[in-house]
Parts: sequence; C-alpha cells; structure tokens
Amino acid sequence: MSAEPALATSLFADRLAEAVERKRSQLLVGLDPRPDLLPVELVGDAQVDRVAAAEGSARFCRGIIDSVAPHVVGVKPQLAFFEALGADGIRALEDVCAYAREAGLLVLADAKRGDIGSTSRAYASAYLEPRGDDPPLGDAMTVNVYPGRDSLEPFLAACRRHGAGVFCLVKTSNEGGADVQDLVLSDGRPLWQHVARLVHELGGELVGSRGLSSVGAVVGATHPRAVGEARRLMPQAVLLLPGVGAQGATPADLARAFTSGPASALVSASRSVLYAFRTTGEDWRTAAALEAARLRRDVWAVSGW
Amino acid sequence: MSAEPALATSLFADRLAEAVERKRSQLLVGLDPRPDLLPVELVGDAQVDRVAAAEGSARFCRGIIDSVAPHVVGVKPQLAFFEALGADGIRALEDVCAYAREAGLLVLADAKRGDIGSTSRAYASAYLEPRGDDPPLGDAMTVNVYPGRDSLEPFLAACRRHGAGVFCLVKTSNEGGADVQDLVLSDGRPLWQHVARLVHELGGELVGSRGLSSVGAVVGATHPRAVGEARRLMPQAVLLLPGVGAQGATPADLARAFTSGPASALVSASRSVLYAFRTTGEDWRTAAALEAARLRRDVWAVSGW
Repeated sequence: MSAEPALATSLFADRLAEAVERKRSQLLVGLDPRPDLLPVELVGDAQVDRVAAAEGSARFCRGIIDSVAPHVVGVKPQLAFFEALGADGIRALEDVCAYAREAGLLVLADAKRGDIGSTSRAYASAYLEPRGDDPPLGDAMTVNVYPGRDSLEPFLAACRRHGAGVFCLVKTSNEGGADVQDLVLSDGRPLWQHVARLVHELGGELVGSRGLSSVGAVVGATHPRAVGEARRLMPQAVLLLPGVGAQGATPADLARAFTSGPASALVSASRSVLYAFRTTGEDWRTAAALEAARLRRDVWAVSGW
Repeated sequence: MSAEPALATSLFADRLAEAVERKRSQLLVGLDPRPDLLPVELVGDAQVDRVAAAEGSARFCRGIIDSVAPHVVGVKPQLAFFEALGADGIRALEDVCAYAREAGLLVLADAKRGDIGSTSRAYASAYLEPRGDDPPLGDAMTVNVYPGRDSLEPFLAACRRHGAGVFCLVKTSNEGGADVQDLVLSDGRPLWQHVARLVHELGGELVGSRGLSSVGAVVGATHPRAVGEARRLMPQAVLLLPGVGAQGATPADLARAFTSGPASALVSASRSVLYAFRTTGEDWRTAAALEAARLRRDVWAVSGW
C-alpha cells in the first residue's frame, strides 16, 4: 500500500449536505430499468434483444433523470438490472451515471458489494475511484459488511482519498431480512444493531463539517421502529431508507431518521416513480416528475427542516 | 411468478460430482486478472488504457484456461476484477466464461451478490440463466445471505429450473470476517454456524443422486477447524474452500471437508496459480499448469478418494 495523500476533495458527507440544503430534497430515485416495463415508445426489440434492451434502458433512465432532476438530490442505479443485460448493460450504466452527473445529481451505485480486501479493492476502484481521465462512476455505493472490517477498508480508503461515500447494509427492507439480521446475540440485541455499532465506529474518522459521516447505513423504511433505533445507534450516519412506495413504507414513518440534520437521511423510491405512468396513464416523464415532486415535498415536511 | 416447469436439466450438484470423478480433480482456479500483474508480453497499454487492459485480461485468462484445463474441474472468475474495467471488462468476462465452457470446464461466477428478492431476481438472470439464445454466463455463483431467506429464492429458482448452483458465504477466508461472522448468539454459537444451518435447510430440496446439494457454502480454507464444523453442520453442501496459496492455507488443512464424497468440497486457488510465473521465472502458462497440477494432486490425496 502506498502512503495516503491528503484529502483530494471534500468529504462526500459535506457535498451531500450542501446538495440537500440547496435543493431542499432528501429524495433519491432508484434506477431499476426493466425491459418488460419500459414505456411502449421505448420498447422496440428490448424484450428480445439485449443490445436493444440496453439502449432502451439507457434512454428510459436519461428521460427519468431529466424529469426528476429538479426534485431529487441524486439517483441510485441498481446495478443488478444493468448487469442482467451484460456488457451492453454496463455500457448503459456508464452512460446513465455520466448523464446524471452532468445534470448535477449525486450518483449512488446500489451494488451491495462485499468481499475480502484484495477483491474489495477492485470493487472500490470499479465504482468509487477515477477511471483514467474519467471521473468515478459513483459518488457513493452500497456495501455488505458480512465479510468484516478489513473487507471495508478499501472502500474507506476511497472515502478518504476520493471523497466517496459508502452505505453499509444494516437492516434490509424485505421481510426475510429478519432471518439473519434479527438473530439475537448473547447480549440480547439483534445482529443488525451490532452491525450498526460497527458502522458507527468505522465512520468516526470521516465526519464532516455538518456532523455527518461519509459512512452511512441502509435501513429499510419498512421498519419504522428500527429506523429510530438506527438513528440512536449511528447518530452521525446518513441513513439510506429504501422501501417507500412499492414496498409499502410512507414518508410519515420516517420522521425520526432526520434528527441529525436535513441530510441525515435519504429516502429512496424506485418502482413507484419509474413506473408511475403505468397506473396514472400519463406520459411516463410527467408521471415520474409528479410522483418525485410529491415524495420530495412529503419527505421534506416530515423531516422537520 | 409463473408456475415452475419441471427440471430442464440435471442438478448442478450431479454435474459437478460427475466432473470431479471423471477428472479426479476438486480444484478450481480463480480468475483474478490484474492489469498490473500481467505477463510482460500481454501488458501492452493495459496499465494506461481500459480497452487494452480488458483485452490483455481476456488473453491472459484464455491462456490460463488452456494451461490448467487438464487439472481443474472449473474456473472461478472473480467479477470485481472484470467490473474494475467497466463495460470492456464485462465483455472480457463474457468472452472468458464462454471460452471456459468450450474447454469443458464449469464456471463459478464469484459475485457475492445479495439483495431483496426483486433485485436478486435480476442477479440470477444475469449470471445463472440462459441469455436469449446464449447459455448462462455461469454454472454457479457465490451469494451473500445477509438479506435473508426470501432474497435467496430467485437463486434457488435458477437451481431448480436451470440446473444452476449457488455457494452461500458462510465463513470468509479473511481475518476480519470474524468481526461479524464470529459474533456469539444467545445459544452460545457463532453467527456463521446459524448461517450454515440456514444453508443446510435451503439446500434440502436440491440434493442430487450423489447426496450432494446444489446449494453449497463458502468456508475459508484458512480456518481448518471451521471447515470441519461446517462439514458437520452442512453434510450435503459442497464446500467451496478459498484461501489456499496466497492466503496461506494448505491442502493438508482440508481433509475433513471431503467426508461427504469426492465432490463434497472444492479448493479454489487464484493468485498462487495465475501469477506463479512471477516467482518461478518460467513461462506464465507453464508455471500455472505446474502449480495447478501440483495442487490438484495434493488436494486429491488429502481428500482420501
């Protein structure tokens, strides 16, 4: 390992806080392009041909970015949906991330990666570090902490050196997450709370001027009580709250997440924004913009800022 | 969800067992191409240009496959190293996986993916399911169980419908894995043993004619005692044992893993095979072939079959 240079850029947590305050939005829109759900004008051969599916997905995501940009602080591309389209899908991902960045949005790569150190090093370089002359694909990414503290070090190094952010999976939004995350440890507390304490410790060295850390945590908005407890256990972490909309959570469930500042929680909605047109019957861009505007307003209101 | 058709192909566990017995090898070679470690004849512009790095990596992996094919039952591409090269890297991955398949090798995509069900669905489709007219990228993949049982269901569906295999992260080979995996639960046992029991339960429906399940487990070869305990807790699981070679484990540490049959454990070595030429000074292909042959022989011997 070479010596770490001084910080090359501002902390992710500070850039995020500045963006949230400026835009008065704590909303992320998740980019989960599904060829079978594309608007009819973009479908073309997307259901039979991977190249067409990747192109349709990229056009869809660009249109969504144009529509929601005034209302959101960033986008959260879900890598699985791009990987499902192979190399063409990853080309689309690269295109979409660059487009979002040009629109002034933060990009949070929803990758949930986690592996031993030498492999995490490659993941950090894939998603959080400059790629030759190009900027990093993402400003931040989601990671899985099951492989332990040393597996996270390459991601933390990217936070220090490149102003990146990481969001550690603490409590997932699905029901089955309880199978592992709610296992009770010898001190009577569930596993996820131990993971939360680890995340809090790891983030201590990366706290910015607003008191928030570049090491955040994913906590399902579908578990409102856990959100409150997570806030208490990780007072400096930005909480990324998926599960609003299609998964059933509402902004009203989330007020407690925001007590550490306007940017101390981010609400992520995917399907309910992307595919709003399928229930409202409006133009897909209009429907996404309206739903994003509504969510942004509701979330800002409950945040109390 | 549509109704599940009858099994379209044989179980992964049976195909694996047949291949192990036929080749008398329980060795996988991990494909971790690193542009900074390529043989000099393949370096070209690989250290400055992503397209060149991807092409050099693909040529390197194809050469390794040619060299080790007689000695290994499969290859384990580590996706992180391909993702680090962006869309060009994924094109190289696709190329390398197809090449390995043509060489008669099983392909185990080392992806460590895990997310809520709708996202896992996309990951299963990316790596375990036919892609249009093309076969699946991998015969099996590694997954992370932290998001719980329902998050694994799409991978299990691919095992049922497409003869795929999954290897669940149970105990990782790195030292820091203990931070989470060794947390002690209220019954006095470490977390990883609870995960092992979950893996054993999940695999019960996918046991083939050799008594092995298509749901396997990753257990670091660097923890010999845990390997024995894992064998006991998951008698039907194929144990994938990384950590031999560069990470310090030796085949002699692993005898207990094989008590459920010749194919009941797979030993994976990456750096010690790929980059053997850097210590021996031989041609890179020759060095890899010699190291793979040696490991294959040592592992077969300790397996007692």
